[in-house]
Amino acid sequence: MATSPQVAIIMGSRSDWPVMKHAADMLEALGVAYEAKVVSAHRTPERMVEFAKGAKAAGFKVIIAGAGGAAHLPGMTASLTPLPVLGVPVPVRDGLKGIDSLLSIVQMPGGVPVGTLAVGEAGAKNAGLLAAQILALNDADLAARVEALRQAQTDGVPESVED
Amino acid sequence: MATSPQVAIIMGSRSDWPVMKHAADMLEALGVAYEAKVVSAHRTPERMVEFAKGAKAAGFKVIIAGAGGAAHLPGMTASLTPLPVLGVPVPVRDGLKGIDSLLSIVQMPGGVPVGTLAVGEAGAKNAGLLAAQILALNDADLAARVEALRQAQTDGVPESVED
Amino acid sequence: MATSPQVAIIMGSRSDWPVMKHAADMLEALGVAYEAKVVSAHRTPERMVEFAKGAKAAGFKVIIAGAGGAAHLPGMTASLTPLPVLGVPVPVRDGLKGIDSLLSIVQMPGGVPVGTLAVGEAGAKNAGLLAAQILALNDADLAARVEALRQAQTDGVPESVED
Amino acid sequence: MATSPQVAIIMGSRSDWPVMKHAADMLEALGVAYEAKVVSAHRTPERMVEFAKGAKAAGFKVIIAGAGGAAHLPGMTASLTPLPVLGVPVPVRDGLKGIDSLLSIVQMPGGVPVGTLAVGEAGAKNAGLLAAQILALNDADLAARVEALRQAQTDGVPESVED
Amino acid sequence: MATSPQVAIIMGSRSDWPVMKHAADMLEALGVAYEAKVVSAHRTPERMVEFAKGAKAAGFKVIIAGAGGAAHLPGMTASLTPLPVLGVPVPVRDGLKGIDSLLSIVQMPGGVPVGTLAVGEAGAKNAGLLAAQILALNDADLAARVEALRQAQTDGVPESVED
Amino acid sequence: MATSPQVAIIMGSRSDWPVMKHAADMLEALGVAYEAKVVSAHRTPERMVEFAKGAKAAGFKVIIAGAGGAAHLPGMTASLTPLPVLGVPVPVRDGLKGIDSLLSIVQMPGGVPVGTLAVGEAGAKNAGLLAAQILALNDADLAARVEALRQAQTDGVPESVED
Amino acid sequence: MATSPQVAIIMGSRSDWPVMKHAADMLEALGVAYEAKVVSAHRTPERMVEFAKGAKAAGFKVIIAGAGGAAHLPGMTASLTPLPVLGVPVPVRDGLKGIDSLLSIVQMPGGVPVGTLAVGEAGAKNAGLLAAQILALNDADLAARVEALRQAQTDGVPESVED
Amino acid sequence: MATSPQVAIIMGSRSDWPVMKHAADMLEALGVAYEAKVVSAHRTPERMVEFAKGAKAAGFKVIIAGAGGAAHLPGMTASLTPLPVLGVPVPVRDGLKGIDSLLSIVQMPGGVPVGTLAVGEAGAKNAGLLAAQILALNDADLAARVEALRQAQTDGVPESVED
Repeated sequence: MATSPQVAIIMGSRSDWPVMKHAADMLEALGVAYEAKVVSAHRTPERMVEFAKGAKAAGFKVIIAGAGGAAHLPGMTASLTPLPVLGVPVPVRDGLKGIDSLLSIVQMPGGVPVGTLAVGEAGAKNAGLLAAQILALNDADLAARVEALRQAQTDGVPESVED
Repeated sequence: MATSPQVAIIMGSRSDWPVMKHAADMLEALGVAYEAKVVSAHRTPERMVEFAKGAKAAGFKVIIAGAGGAAHLPGMTASLTPLPVLGVPVPVRDGLKGIDSLLSIVQMPGGVPVGTLAVGEAGAKNAGLLAAQILALNDADLAARVEALRQAQTDGVPESVED
Repeated sequence: MATSPQVAIIMGSRSDWPVMKHAADMLEALGVAYEAKVVSAHRTPERMVEFAKGAKAAGFKVIIAGAGGAAHLPGMTASLTPLPVLGVPVPVRDGLKGIDSLLSIVQMPGGVPVGTLAVGEAGAKNAGLLAAQILALNDADLAARVEALRQAQTDGVPESVED
Repeated sequence: MATSPQVAIIMGSRSDWPVMKHAADMLEALGVAYEAKVVSAHRTPERMVEFAKGAKAAGFKVIIAGAGGAAHLPGMTASLTPLPVLGVPVPVRDGLKGIDSLLSIVQMPGGVPVGTLAVGEAGAKNAGLLAAQILALNDADLAARVEALRQAQTDGVPESVED
Repeated sequence: MATSPQVAIIMGSRSDWPVMKHAADMLEALGVAYEAKVVSAHRTPERMVEFAKGAKAAGFKVIIAGAGGAAHLPGMTASLTPLPVLGVPVPVRDGLKGIDSLLSIVQMPGGVPVGTLAVGEAGAKNAGLLAAQILALNDADLAARVEALRQAQTDGVPESVED
Repeated sequence: MATSPQVAIIMGSRSDWPVMKHAADMLEALGVAYEAKVVSAHRTPERMVEFAKGAKAAGFKVIIAGAGGAAHLPGMTASLTPLPVLGVPVPVRDGLKGIDSLLSIVQMPGGVPVGTLAVGEAGAKNAGLLAAQILALNDADLAARVEALRQAQTDGVPESVED
Repeated sequence: MATSPQVAIIMGSRSDWPVMKHAADMLEALGVAYEAKVVSAHRTPERMVEFAKGAKAAGFKVIIAGAGGAAHLPGMTASLTPLPVLGVPVPVRDGLKGIDSLLSIVQMPGGVPVGTLAVGEAGAKNAGLLAAQILALNDADLAARVEALRQAQTDGVPESVED
Repeated sequence: MATSPQVAIIMGSRSDWPVMKHAADMLEALGVAYEAKVVSAHRTPERMVEFAKGAKAAGFKVIIAGAGGAAHLPGMTASLTPLPVLGVPVPVRDGLKGIDSLLSIVQMPGGVPVGTLAVGEAGAKNAGLLAAQILALNDADLAARVEALRQAQTDGVPESVED
């Protein structure tokens, strides 16, 4: 990917990567440049503040943040940037199936939105796609790629229930 | 508002308006033109299909969809348009405090994202704000208004717990 | 099965088939002709609309729809046909044990009913049986077969807790 | 209503009637003869057994059963009749918002289906409508009335969010 | 065990036995005669009615009933006998971790009590123990055995966290 | 009531009395002598220990314990007496609708049973009735009164849904 | 209160004060100096960072943080200070009865603890008391006042259920 | 560890040790002397009472209590000691993913606080850390070790998502 990254994918821990990788894969498939890194709200709060406050100036357009348990990364990032933030609840061990992550991310107070996706891999994949849909509002080529992917997705649904 | 609407606010029923009006108020405060109307996934499915398929051509950039109970409007709209769709779970009478609306909206399968906000008024307000943040990616004036609103919001938090 | 199908079994994805097959097996055991196919509310919304609007004219009497997560297929189908629609919540990976599917299917607003069965295989089996019970209202032979199956089911419950 | 009743509406207690009346109202609006009575699974189990075993011979075609809390009436009735049984979870005081009623009705084991509707009034209304849709499979006049009601319902959704 | 059985252990399905066996084991350990059998509320409702109505005359003193999903056996049995009924929620596959079983058993309406124990094996074991505690009210020998078991249980708790 | 009390009704706080009074009313209606008092597991743990350890010697046969929130009174009492203990979850303000009370009471480990009734007034009423059913195992007069009450309860269910 | 404050009570919004005031009242009753102020994780993230990083140097010993919905204030504060942080889930309108606040506060990842109290007023009161118990570890006078309050609390539980 | 123990780690059963060991490991890493033992609220209530009443005199400063299911150990211990008590919900088999343990521990009534940590291993680890943070208020060396551990934790978060 030659262009500078438009999407930042951040996550609270390396252990979130197997889930969050699906966001990266979707962006890659759509030709959207991204950067993925670990930024922990709880273990590296100052790195998070610095990242979030600088994200717009760094040229990012959309931030995808994934976290599990008491998942504060998406909401805290959203409180520190005017960029759109998309949140992915990551199910964790001993983590109540992800319902704790989901509620921690989605129930933000008025004034600080996080666009929240589904728990787990489907949510990560969709965060990548939604980021692309947002960027496509001003990128006709990307819009065409998004529509092609959506069409391929539609065409790829066989009617038969078995091979 | 002189310009043509960039945001569509749709909802399953007139009874959702007292909640969804908070999205409209936020957009109004930020000077973003919007159109609000009732489109029921269940009672007017063809109106929904027609609206969703035509939304991009009609010039909308972002769709905000609110619904309660088995809330299908945001997800079905998302399946019919490449535009970003933001979903607001509306709590309804006999509606399990909105947890049913929330899960019906957020748990979308991979390939069809809905950026979901909080249950109720805070979620509606934030849908309006997130739509503006998305539009602001390519509208420096709007970006300035969003940042001013965010700053005013920050400034408006008194330290004292009582008057 | 010589006669044309009276029951349509639709599901959002091939991955739902291992669950939904239990509906087919029940119908097969009762000699009710059915057709099973994949119709995704989210990935093939227009195929869904076309199918649902044409289902009655195509000769179907009852529709069984299974889906997982934010399960919109049963309710959307019900909004597009006057035929009785039975819904089966399919538990999916990262899917909150099926409670999200259940609430997304059962909590329909007044005016668009979906007769909802249990989460998973038992629900699929029962959807097949309930469809047969509905058809049996006007098919004495089928009614006899249903009653025989119910009787066999009763007779097949041993009193002893172990072999 | 001149004809003999085709639908039985039963409920565990008189206190369920304000909710279950919505099923009766729907049937009345569609010209479907019904009979409504109190049959308690727990306080009058033998009346329930007698009713359920005799329902088919008494000429009923569909049974609508509403109950709250540990709601056993729909499932027990279903175990004693080959007729289709539709269940309505009634929210009760100290009743966990109806989630207990819903799970008690919908989670039936394989072999004894209950087609379950939404919690509360919307569910009761939909039980009446689903019963009519089932009967309409063999009653063209009723089918026309169902379709007219559905059409009126669609036509009655205004686009404007306010008067 | 020479004496005629004082406790009946009933369950909805043979598949409940691995859980319900813990009730039997406890009774066995305390020298309380019991009888265990399969009685399905849904598949053999008339066997259930007959059993429950005859249980007192048959000499039983306490009934332990285990069931899963929409668990109606304990409550329906309680509605048909003046004997104390103890209920054990059995977790089943696709059964929402037993929360559905628990709510279906415990949330009985006023007038028909079921003394409900914990979900699964601990609950089954405790149902056996509670039955014995009830019988011990009029059986000093059994009371002594219960107290001995309780004492042994207390004595058997080592202070050290590891061997 | 001339005889010495056979049932103790204990509760964590005077504020539980409006709910727990339904247990007392039921016992009164059945002519079972009882004593009701406040014993707080958390605020008066030693009073609780003393009460529970002495309950059998004091002549009590059954203990009914009601509590809300993190409801420890029923289980702790059960750990200190060989008498049967029945638990009533009391819904409290800020108390998650009683689900916290219910789980705190019912999910006891193997070896220390609490026979748990429904949340709130119905549960309290049923605790009184279940206590009477237990005592009736060795009191033919009480057994007759219990059966009469059950019969009156059955007879008192009108078929008509309205006056 | 003459001494400088040892406890900081912070909350996300003035609207949390009616709940959080119970923490202040408890500290006041025990003669512990405190300071209460509004610090919003989401609307004033930098004020929060500054406060949390400086809290130890400012002389605070314990921080009590209350918040509702996606409640990030306790956990974020904990990530920025080595002081013990106690969290109080505040139930908010449209806030799922406080279960969202509770899970957002308590489910912290390993390495950043928040000692979480009950939802609402009881939790706030207990946060004040727990803070005092912590401070009492090195303040014999305060320890005596805590024990006196606990004793008064015990003494104040009447045995009688009514006046 | 040469010094006498300042922290007691108690748990309801040896089977809780694999979880609770994480509290011990944390204390060990921070050089805080502790004692770990099994004290069951339900099986050894008198050992619990004796331990809790004597804990302060025995020299303990903080008590960490872990338990599963209807988890009464933390709250009952808190009711018997003026020392700060930290609670760890332990997920158990058939234990509803730990949500029952969590609610049983955290929802304490006003007057008897338990500082509750997350479900499972993260909670146990954090209980150890929070105990150390409390002790560090009066132990500058320990405070330095806590801050070093926190710093190492921060430093140990790599930015890269993969090795």
